[in-house]
Amino acid sequence: MTQSKPHQAEFRSPSDALSRLGIVLPPAPKPVASYVPCVRTGNLLIVSGQLPFRDGTLLAIGAVPDPVSIERAQEAARQCILNGLAVVAGECGGSLDGVARIVRLGVFVASCNGFTEQPKVANGASDLLQQIFGEAGRHARAAVGTNALPLGASVEIEMMVELR
Amino acid sequence: MTQSKPHQAEFRSPSDALSRLGIVLPPAPKPVASYVPCVRTGNLLIVSGQLPFRDGTLLAIGAVPDPVSIERAQEAARQCILNGLAVVAGECGGSLDGVARIVRLGVFVASCNGFTEQPKVANGASDLLQQIFGEAGRHARAAVGTNALPLGASVEIEMMVELR
Amino acid sequence: MTQSKPHQAEFRSPSDALSRLGIVLPPAPKPVASYVPCVRTGNLLIVSGQLPFRDGTLLAIGAVPDPVSIERAQEAARQCILNGLAVVAGECGGSLDGVARIVRLGVFVASCNGFTEQPKVANGASDLLQQIFGEAGRHARAAVGTNALPLGASVEIEMMVELR
Repeated sequence: MTQSKPHQAEFRSPSDALSRLGIVLPPAPKPVASYVPCVRTGNLLIVSGQLPFRDGTLLAIGAVPDPVSIERAQEAARQCILNGLAVVAGECGGSLDGVARIVRLGVFVASCNGFTEQPKVANGASDLLQQIFGEAGRHARAAVGTNALPLGASVEIEMMVELR
Repeated sequence: MTQSKPHQAEFRSPSDALSRLGIVLPPAPKPVASYVPCVRTGNLLIVSGQLPFRDGTLLAIGAVPDPVSIERAQEAARQCILNGLAVVAGECGGSLDGVARIVRLGVFVASCNGFTEQPKVANGASDLLQQIFGEAGRHARAAVGTNALPLGASVEIEMMVELR
Repeated sequence: MTQSKPHQAEFRSPSDALSRLGIVLPPAPKPVASYVPCVRTGNLLIVSGQLPFRDGTLLAIGAVPDPVSIERAQEAARQCILNGLAVVAGECGGSLDGVARIVRLGVFVASCNGFTEQPKVANGASDLLQQIFGEAGRHARAAVGTNALPLGASVEIEMMVELR
């Protein structure tokens, strides 16, 4: 709680972490068509597959590593998480402080044949979650490649989150 | 409950919706090999990936959009859901009225390289669920492409359902 | 409990089944980077996607059926499960006897275009689970193909397990 205990303070709350990281969550996306951004069942929140939209435009389109570099795909993975967290916050009254644990990520990476570094791409998502949530951000993960994603996005990520 | 309140009556029950839509669910598939059509854990029902079988034949074989059109793939997605709902009904004494919420769909679309309209295909599944269940049918969803599906099917869909 | 009741004895416990099958689980993998091998939420254990490592080396690298045969991929699927069960045991004090039910497998098979026998590959995983857990090992499953997996592995499998 004080400057003299930086490590304890570091993960005091996800809200604090967002401030410290200079992150402002995007607006929660609106429901589209017949499916919704998330569904709560018990204390689990299932978040729909998120694409790396930022201000209405996809951050990365195409397969990794060509034309989209691993670094660019990591940035896209990070954006997918920001969009997913916006959904979570939208469900929880505007804050992430109701998150008990990030349980699972499903990470799909548009991949050239022969590309095998999907975990590096997914780390763009995983590292951000640990930065924001600390221990509660460490999750189970399945990261795989695919030849085609919606709208040509380079990355799609779905989440399972435990709420308090 | 009366003709004068059509919108309330519309989603009175999934059974009513099926009748209204003229849908008769197919017989629940038998367990195959070492896995089963669904597993219940708590009040969640996890339904295995369903293929678009109708009367023992796959409705659509091959990648989208060539040789299988988006429209045909949507019909296949719809059939996957009918088969999945047959599994759910089989678990619930023959009726869908024990469904509290469709929680999540995992939609895999066999895709030509460069095909990016997996969400349109998946809407064939999502729209049907909303028709049958109303608000309770609106679900979280991850829709992705793939280069290869079992038996060459154009679509495979798995479901997570909350029971009452 | 006696030799005269072999079928009851057969599934007395997963520990017994492992002994009978001559299986020694590998050491539980260490957490890697920002994600972890599994997360427990309520009585569900979500296990991260497992690759077919044995003694530090991937059992099978490349797409099925060429260069990797279906038989080899089945063996790889079996190894993914052993690694996943090592994670489960690590979470449960070293034993599998706390497993109430294997709920779901997500099976990803690196596939040549046109390969459609992902279910046969996945049976390498499913059959082993039934051998170890009996009825409690019969699970829901989604098995799909993909053009690219981490490190070039031929198979990746994630699990959802219900604990007692």
